[in-house]
Amino acid sequence: MVQAREPDRAPPDASTLARALTAPRGVALIGASADPSRTSGRAQRYLKRHGFDGAVYPINPNSPEVQGERAFPDLASVPGPIDHAYVLLNTPHVPAAIEACAAAGVKVATILAGGFADAGAEGLAQQRRILETARRAGLRLIGPNSMGVVDCRARLALTVNAALELERLLPGRLTVLSHSGSLIGTLLSRGQARGISFARLISVGNEADLAIGELGQMFVDDPDTDAFLLFLETIRGRADLAAFARRAHAIGKPIIAYALGRSEAGQQLATSHTGALAGSRAAMSAFLSEHGIIEVDLLETLFEMPPLAIGRKPAARPRRDGTTASPAVSVVTTTGGGGAMVVDRLETLGVTVAAPNPAVIARLKAHKIAVSASPLIDLTLAGTRPDMVDATLATLIDHAETQAVVMVVGSSAQFHPQLAVKPLVRFARGAKPVAVFLVPQADASMSLLAEAGIAAFRTPEACADGLRALLSWRTPRTAAPPPPAGLDAAAAMLRGAPGHSLDERAATALFGALGISCAPSTVVAPEALDSHPLDLAFPVAVKILSPDLPHKTEVGGVALGVSDVPHVRAVGRAMLGRIAETHPRARLSGLLVQTMERGLAEALVGYRVDPGVGPIVTLAAGGTLAEIYRDSAVRLAPTDLATARDMIDEVKGLAPIRGYRGLPVGDLDALAGAIVALSQLAHLTERPLAEAEINPLLVKARGAGVVAVDGLARFEGT
Amino acid sequence: MVQAREPDRAPPDASTLARALTAPRGVALIGASADPSRTSGRAQRYLKRHGFDGAVYPINPNSPEVQGERAFPDLASVPGPIDHAYVLLNTPHVPAAIEACAAAGVKVATILAGGFADAGAEGLAQQRRILETARRAGLRLIGPNSMGVVDCRARLALTVNAALELERLLPGRLTVLSHSGSLIGTLLSRGQARGISFARLISVGNEADLAIGELGQMFVDDPDTDAFLLFLETIRGRADLAAFARRAHAIGKPIIAYALGRSEAGQQLATSHTGALAGSRAAMSAFLSEHGIIEVDLLETLFEMPPLAIGRKPAARPRRDGTTASPAVSVVTTTGGGGAMVVDRLETLGVTVAAPNPAVIARLKAHKIAVSASPLIDLTLAGTRPDMVDATLATLIDHAETQAVVMVVGSSAQFHPQLAVKPLVRFARGAKPVAVFLVPQADASMSLLAEAGIAAFRTPEACADGLRALLSWRTPRTAAPPPPAGLDAAAAMLRGAPGHSLDERAATALFGALGISCAPSTVVAPEALDSHPLDLAFPVAVKILSPDLPHKTEVGGVALGVSDVPHVRAVGRAMLGRIAETHPRARLSGLLVQTMERGLAEALVGYRVDPGVGPIVTLAAGGTLAEIYRDSAVRLAPTDLATARDMIDEVKGLAPIRGYRGLPVGDLDALAGAIVALSQLAHLTERPLAEAEINPLLVKARGAGVVAVDGLARFEGT
Repeated sequence: MVQAREPDRAPPDASTLARALTAPRGVALIGASADPSRTSGRAQRYLKRHGFDGAVYPINPNSPEVQGERAFPDLASVPGPIDHAYVLLNTPHVPAAIEACAAAGVKVATILAGGFADAGAEGLAQQRRILETARRAGLRLIGPNSMGVVDCRARLALTVNAALELERLLPGRLTVLSHSGSLIGTLLSRGQARGISFARLISVGNEADLAIGELGQMFVDDPDTDAFLLFLETIRGRADLAAFARRAHAIGKPIIAYALGRSEAGQQLATSHTGALAGSRAAMSAFLSEHGIIEVDLLETLFEMPPLAIGRKPAARPRRDGTTASPAVSVVTTTGGGGAMVVDRLETLGVTVAAPNPAVIARLKAHKIAVSASPLIDLTLAGTRPDMVDATLATLIDHAETQAVVMVVGSSAQFHPQLAVKPLVRFARGAKPVAVFLVPQADASMSLLAEAGIAAFRTPEACADGLRALLSWRTPRTAAPPPPAGLDAAAAMLRGAPGHSLDERAATALFGALGISCAPSTVVAPEALDSHPLDLAFPVAVKILSPDLPHKTEVGGVALGVSDVPHVRAVGRAMLGRIAETHPRARLSGLLVQTMERGLAEALVGYRVDPGVGPIVTLAAGGTLAEIYRDSAVRLAPTDLATARDMIDEVKGLAPIRGYRGLPVGDLDALAGAIVALSQLAHLTERPLAEAEINPLLVKARGAGVVAVDGLARFEGT
Repeated sequence: MVQAREPDRAPPDASTLARALTAPRGVALIGASADPSRTSGRAQRYLKRHGFDGAVYPINPNSPEVQGERAFPDLASVPGPIDHAYVLLNTPHVPAAIEACAAAGVKVATILAGGFADAGAEGLAQQRRILETARRAGLRLIGPNSMGVVDCRARLALTVNAALELERLLPGRLTVLSHSGSLIGTLLSRGQARGISFARLISVGNEADLAIGELGQMFVDDPDTDAFLLFLETIRGRADLAAFARRAHAIGKPIIAYALGRSEAGQQLATSHTGALAGSRAAMSAFLSEHGIIEVDLLETLFEMPPLAIGRKPAARPRRDGTTASPAVSVVTTTGGGGAMVVDRLETLGVTVAAPNPAVIARLKAHKIAVSASPLIDLTLAGTRPDMVDATLATLIDHAETQAVVMVVGSSAQFHPQLAVKPLVRFARGAKPVAVFLVPQADASMSLLAEAGIAAFRTPEACADGLRALLSWRTPRTAAPPPPAGLDAAAAMLRGAPGHSLDERAATALFGALGISCAPSTVVAPEALDSHPLDLAFPVAVKILSPDLPHKTEVGGVALGVSDVPHVRAVGRAMLGRIAETHPRARLSGLLVQTMERGLAEALVGYRVDPGVGPIVTLAAGGTLAEIYRDSAVRLAPTDLATARDMIDEVKGLAPIRGYRGLPVGDLDALAGAIVALSQLAHLTERPLAEAEINPLLVKARGAGVVAVDGLARFEGT
């Protein structure tokens, strides 16, 4: 690593930078093309088309005029201040352009070209060099690999995205921050087609310098932004992203994210695309969820759902003792088939759809609305009477157990919005979220609802996805939970550990220091096999301990169910003899003799530092089947007991110890305690572990605790 | 059951009926309202608006004129022939209207009102009465609970669906058959908004008489129909549906279905909606798949995917020996983010996305198109050159391993369809299916593709769903596989069995007669406990046999691991004593003494007659976890060995005996054989079983077979 030099100039403060980014006094287009149809000719055309009223300086050494405007051979020739430069040149010319921006005192430069961190090691090195240039000059960067910045209020269309061919750039109240450049155009065009507009859209590209977290913090207090939409390929700068999320939560502005990388192939594309390190997708989802960022599954949900969350906070989580009702959604429809599609999909996603209770049915009856106790409240003919639609919604919203209402509008939505769509408008931003699914093609109704600030969904699937996302929205975790007392012993063990990893014995000792019960054991040196006292409960397991033989079973290094001391000695001798023959060069630390424990179930508890989101803790059921079903729960580390209990509930394979079919219940409190204890490794940053795993952790009956039987741990950088 | 009376008049033949339904000479609107905005006033208005040129007879006893047309007090007063009557009256008046239709020699009557089978037992009885009336007169029925019939070529808008308010009814080449009436309007309005039109749309309602299967057969040879879209809430008339599917397959017309009922709530809504019996959703999907009906997951896929399948047959299934390549899709894009969304979703759905191999990369290079060996073929700038888009598609389609190509078009699709959308047109109905996902809002491109006959998808999710559906499309199973020889013994057992069900002993004997190995056992009469010879391999299990005690374990009626004859006698005596005390009135057939067997894994093989689709066979892994994960495979019974092997591959929980992580492989051929054998119960219809289950079936190592350890069977009507 090169020692960072002191910057020659301080970078702009956040508000100056925000202005430079989205409402610059002067914009330089470095490499502006005279051909308005070429990519490098577009930004100038779009700035003009959409009425940007700051100064625009095309920089082109070959031509005194570009697209009818005066052009400049270089930045030095520009007469006015340049707040923002868009570098439209090909990759090889970018470093010089950044040097020029640095020299000219530009505040922020956006770089179009890819071929940096997105193109392998050499590109990454090049990206680091231009970042260094920029840092020295107090110049901030967007990109490389950025399609640009669009600010609809400032009419700044500083982008090459062809979606800006559109007639008018309407200002809205959503700010978009996207790793994908093309997606800013997608959102703009799809949104505007149905009356959904944006405050600004920023294509952040490789995030060499300015990343989503810092940009989010820059705009979170913007009075013209109600919500943020993120299109994510990875997580970079997690501390800034977390700070952004906490601030957004504090002032009631939801952040909604669509994240690529559900599949392995998708994840590789997402990360190679902008040169990120591959973190795990489950870790990414845990990060988003625990920071109060709503994650949607479907593309259109991203821009359809914001009104469900704007101005609201995540619902209080139901209490574990069952004294609070679970979140339930009421679905009202004017058409059986359309409504059934939504109920069906909601239930598939695990959202409970509530049938109206007798009190609600009676209140509706007072309005002459006859409904049955079905999860689908079918208004049939009453669905064509605005007063009855109004009365139904008001009644349901007024009902304490309703968390949200979905209104499904059938054919009247297409030609008669006044019947069942118009009456919904007064429920915008009311006491409960209202989502609308329009069953036919119904453009006028769609725009009417968008204008009113009501979430209108085009498909039953996005409607259900939006509700699911809303109801699983969480309050952000607190900034930095303090480490508990008593981690000193564990810290000392890590400091003193030789080598790159801990063997089973050292790992279980570490888990013990964290407060996790481990199976009683003793280490017998090979030469002391016949003399070492073995005051353990029998039967025992005998295992070889060697830093060179991590896969003990496969080398014949494990014997189970050994019943007494003479047997231990016999088995141990045979094992040592076998290993000496097959692996003569393996270093032997000894034999681990361990009391065999029994539990109701086996669990795997893991700790890992994810390259994207940092320390995480994982819980899975033990055994082959749990592995096959890829059934695990992931949370950020360190975690707390309530969260650990949620993890236990999430793992399907642990159902047998949660009381499934009357089977004996396991010690879930002790299991939660072990999860929390292992997650404390995140505090031990002096010599940080890359990963640690307890496998298996035996879960005994309620009150009898858990016991770690085997484990491993590995330091970072190994 | 009332004895069916001989009909007074023969029903119309299929072609006469088809004409009466969709191109009638005369239409009667029974209960036509003078108010064109009322539901019962709409059909007349829509018929006129869309230019139906047959005779329309409003029937209204209170008015000589309705909506400006001459009205008639009753059917008898109508001067011309009435091929089709639409009964618009409320439920109580329907029976009289059907009597009148029968008397007037109407060929088909469509009934709007619900309140029949969809409203409980009394409604069902009423529905049966009107059906009886109709049958006697050779009158066919659509509905009750039908929104009507729309034929776009004949300009027959015989419906009350408000979607018909649209300006022009454009004729297309898709026929829609829907349980939901509102969905015909949904498809019409959503389709027409993007250039997708229909040949006809029929709302079949409760299917009291004419069901989707018969209607499908009626129109399958229609030269103006290329494909059928079904919106299903249940399966009624499975033989007709199967015959329709076979004919459609034979002449290359795909049938594509969206089916409600994924969740329990959704299933209840779907079935209560039109009064169907609840069949299992997995059984329904098995029925569709095995009859070559493509099932889509998302609503929009239903009308977006047809061009992918029209004129094609299901792809040949890859051979089990690995000598054929698995289906793989190539994804080409002009935009990284948009393309990554599709790849990500495809892989999530289990569709393999192929990276171009070196030969393909070289051929593209010859066209000056540089791509890497990534699953996403990103054209970047070449994506704005029509010749390069053309060359890329042609190259990929020409490549033998490509099964289908997805083209993702970014921002150019919105304002410049000529760049990357227009070049796709020539690949319509070519050698390989081509799907297009348009990333931005791109209405002109959408229509251009629809007109060309290319599948254009609005969302990445529907695009992936369409590809998944296409690649999992199967050739229909053959009509009626003949029963194998040797079922006589099993048939005789069923004939002679006393009571409503078979106990463990009788059930395993039945499985044995079907050719499934069972654990050796003997039944010891209580009084012969001390004398009965026990020439079995030990250890054994001892179990109580009683028709009154099906849950043997819970009453202390099972002992495992009994090691020798004296122990059997002691255990048996204790068991008999205990049962005599706790269940003195239980009838005892004796004690079952059975050799304990061991296997690599346990499986559950079940047979059941589903109320919708008929006999099915189910395979699951044994044990609690398999139950928790709801991990099973379902097929129609009887089935064959190849299908049974597919089932084994589908059950995740059987991975350990399929060679997962080097674990010993089970006797999968024997397991497949047992599945096929149990499925043969579908042939034994003389005294049919409602269900039979082998649980567990132990699967031994390859070559060592399977053995049934426990089971049960229950006759129909119990």
